[in-house]
Amino acid sequence: MAKEKKVEQITDMEIDFAQWYTDVCKKAELIDYSSIKGMFIYRPYGYAIWENIQKGLDERFKETGHENVYLPMLIPESLLQREKDHVEGFAPECAWVTYGGSDKLEERYCIRPTSETLFCEHYANVIHSWRDLPKLYNQWCSVLRWEKTSRPFLRHREFLWQEGHTMHATAEEAIAETEQMLNIYADFMENVLAMPVVKGKKTDKEKFSGAEATYTVECMMHDRKALQGGTSHFFGDGFAKAFDITFTGKDNKLHNPFQTSWGVSTRLIGGIIMTHGDNNGLVLPPRIAPVQAIVIPVAQHKEGVLDAATELLNRLKAAGVRAKMDDSDQSMGWKAAEYEMKGVPLRVEIGPKDMEKGQCCICRRDSGEKVFVPLTELEEQVAKLLDAVHDGMYARAKKNLEEHTKTCQTMDEVKDFMQNEGGFARTMWCGDLECELKMKEEVGVTSRCMPLHQEKVGETCVCCGKKADKMIYWGVAY
Amino acid sequence: MAKEKKVEQITDMEIDFAQWYTDVCKKAELIDYSSIKGMFIYRPYGYAIWENIQKGLDERFKETGHENVYLPMLIPESLLQREKDHVEGFAPECAWVTYGGSDKLEERYCIRPTSETLFCEHYANVIHSWRDLPKLYNQWCSVLRWEKTSRPFLRHREFLWQEGHTMHATAEEAIAETEQMLNIYADFMENVLAMPVVKGKKTDKEKFSGAEATYTVECMMHDRKALQGGTSHFFGDGFAKAFDITFTGKDNKLHNPFQTSWGVSTRLIGGIIMTHGDNNGLVLPPRIAPVQAIVIPVAQHKEGVLDAATELLNRLKAAGVRAKMDDSDQSMGWKAAEYEMKGVPLRVEIGPKDMEKGQCCICRRDSGEKVFVPLTELEEQVAKLLDAVHDGMYARAKKNLEEHTKTCQTMDEVKDFMQNEGGFARTMWCGDLECELKMKEEVGVTSRCMPLHQEKVGETCVCCGKKADKMIYWGVAY
Repeated sequence: MAKEKKVEQITDMEIDFAQWYTDVCKKAELIDYSSIKGMFIYRPYGYAIWENIQKGLDERFKETGHENVYLPMLIPESLLQREKDHVEGFAPECAWVTYGGSDKLEERYCIRPTSETLFCEHYANVIHSWRDLPKLYNQWCSVLRWEKTSRPFLRHREFLWQEGHTMHATAEEAIAETEQMLNIYADFMENVLAMPVVKGKKTDKEKFSGAEATYTVECMMHDRKALQGGTSHFFGDGFAKAFDITFTGKDNKLHNPFQTSWGVSTRLIGGIIMTHGDNNGLVLPPRIAPVQAIVIPVAQHKEGVLDAATELLNRLKAAGVRAKMDDSDQSMGWKAAEYEMKGVPLRVEIGPKDMEKGQCCICRRDSGEKVFVPLTELEEQVAKLLDAVHDGMYARAKKNLEEHTKTCQTMDEVKDFMQNEGGFARTMWCGDLECELKMKEEVGVTSRCMPLHQEKVGETCVCCGKKADKMIYWGVAY
Repeated sequence: MAKEKKVEQITDMEIDFAQWYTDVCKKAELIDYSSIKGMFIYRPYGYAIWENIQKGLDERFKETGHENVYLPMLIPESLLQREKDHVEGFAPECAWVTYGGSDKLEERYCIRPTSETLFCEHYANVIHSWRDLPKLYNQWCSVLRWEKTSRPFLRHREFLWQEGHTMHATAEEAIAETEQMLNIYADFMENVLAMPVVKGKKTDKEKFSGAEATYTVECMMHDRKALQGGTSHFFGDGFAKAFDITFTGKDNKLHNPFQTSWGVSTRLIGGIIMTHGDNNGLVLPPRIAPVQAIVIPVAQHKEGVLDAATELLNRLKAAGVRAKMDDSDQSMGWKAAEYEMKGVPLRVEIGPKDMEKGQCCICRRDSGEKVFVPLTELEEQVAKLLDAVHDGMYARAKKNLEEHTKTCQTMDEVKDFMQNEGGFARTMWCGDLECELKMKEEVGVTSRCMPLHQEKVGETCVCCGKKADKMIYWGVAY
């Protein structure tokens, strides 16, 4: 018997959110498992989403003067150890290469978990004068972190990402770069991925190993948990000193440059799924969807239907819409379910009756709404509908974020809120690590960020009750 | 003292070709060394060439129905061993991961030297029915081969490449795919990289470990050595059997699918350098050059010059030319040498005298020829010049290939030719491995390929003198 593909049921997210998520990843054919635990296969549909993310971000990086490079995937152990905080943060989850062919290596190499040390070694070679600054580099690659637990897109042992690494003559310039990249991430997530974000600064406890300051964009998922979408780090000149990177300034004296790094990963795809998906599967933001419109001929054996559907397809493609047609022999029901599952923003149907009326029927994935569009207005209406789908998705996600962000004054209030509702608890905080740890122990929340737009939402620290001047968000994070 | 960047001399290629090559790689800022032997850093200018190669090939792959995927970088040792010939070919040059964090792994993992085994494992999971075929996958990634010797772009321990892996219902379809991809490579190399190729089939000795047949595009470098530009392999159903990949056919019976793989790597950049470069540095084919035209204002302190140069730059960009301007305070001599070294196809100068005459001066990198172009004809003339540069570069490379390919009847003739001139020796060959080995031992040449366009250039094998029906090329290869 032929094992034909079928549309399989996915678990309802209200019943088991984690299972719903895994079902969507598998059944929308985004990902597959490999024989190594925690190492996943990005299937064509999942990879195509990443390619669109890459394209959108890469354009923004290049517009702001960044250049792409590629550095080795292996880091000698001695190089990793040059910056103390950094090696402490990463060494426990490094995968180590110890043999080359049949020869035992004199020194172990780890597969990069991140590339600060490699970039620093290279920068020491190529930065000499103020003329060589700034250096604005970015790298698209995969990195390895040997973690114990794993989930598709959210936590892989190997994942795809970009890592920007820049060097500047002054701290001010480096800080401006850190902020610029955070804003690029936030803009991209809101205007392309339809994911509203909270921009903020991480606490010292949560910042990147070796950084002076870490900035983050935090998002809220359907289940009201937080997802860190991207981070941007300011390093000061700590690494530059550890790696002996110097330049001769216009003053003819030697200086250490100031450094940043920033990155987003395929984790964003997990964020898209958990922000927009529903019980019928994936719901893709139109600006990132590999297929924006799927054309389906109705009663395609009838005369003229395939021609009409093909003309429709070609008009959409000519208008710059990423469109495909499914004229396979599968049933209409199968096709409808398939493209629901895959989250295609618009399903465009045309059959004999539509042809008589000079129209097609367009169904929105996000709302299920159907509209009949006169063929004379096809391109214009499809462009409008794609924008409407984006706006609708963004508005729903924004509503979710706002409705489940609550100002709290006491730990009990936070505890109640997290237990009964879940979301982001907005409080004041004194800044002490002790209070941050206590929130984790007693309420089970971690600090998400201190939003850049600070508001005074109280007088005293949610934990110790002392006078506090920092507004902070708490939540449970992926 | 400031260490300012200077234009440094490069060795003449007639004096020391290998040193000339290394000088160009370093001084055109294509590459840098890392602290691990054989692992190189692709600097922005070198990586930008690769990005253009990627873009051009990726478009061609997608036009022919291929989809990109990403599979893990690690292969369990047991998986690598599933296909006997394959593991024998690759195991000696694998880098092995033995520790994850502080835990010794139960099984060793090698960093992929190529991904046939991983693709096969995945294909076994996702191929069930004839409806699932063909699978036309491609992956952009880096691979590791722990070789003893290394040279920039030509032989890295880690290099960037693409690897296509496809599965088909019939051997005929798979063979057609193998040929299609070879033709795409040849077309791309000739029409984009301006590198003439010889398309042919590898001997059994030279074919890929585990393949039934390997096809290749071979090019001739300035020093008359051969460079294998890309390969395309037909695997039959050998891997499919070893990995138990089956599908239910339309006949409702189980079958093994037929497989191909094909790849090109950053080695192509080495080929570009050694095909087109000269004693002033790099010469880049216009269709792949990161900067196609560099605009240089002459006497830029004089009124209106910078404005005129900027207008020129903007017009070129608007016309789709990859153009940049250098209005730095470096001297004209420095700038001229710098963009010669970097191989920028056109240098466009404009100064007060040109402005009076309503013209600019355009200098071709390939020929050194200067032309004055009326500003009214700028876009049109630049487009024509870029094509002329491409055609000129292709013609010179083709001349080099043709003038140094010689038909030989005897081993002595081949030996003489290789010693006194060098190039491709075209002979007849009986097909015996013994003769192929003897050519290597006694003449120092390897078989490059049996060209697809076979001609009868003699009656007997160049080595054993027996009747021979295969026309073959011999050479010394990178």
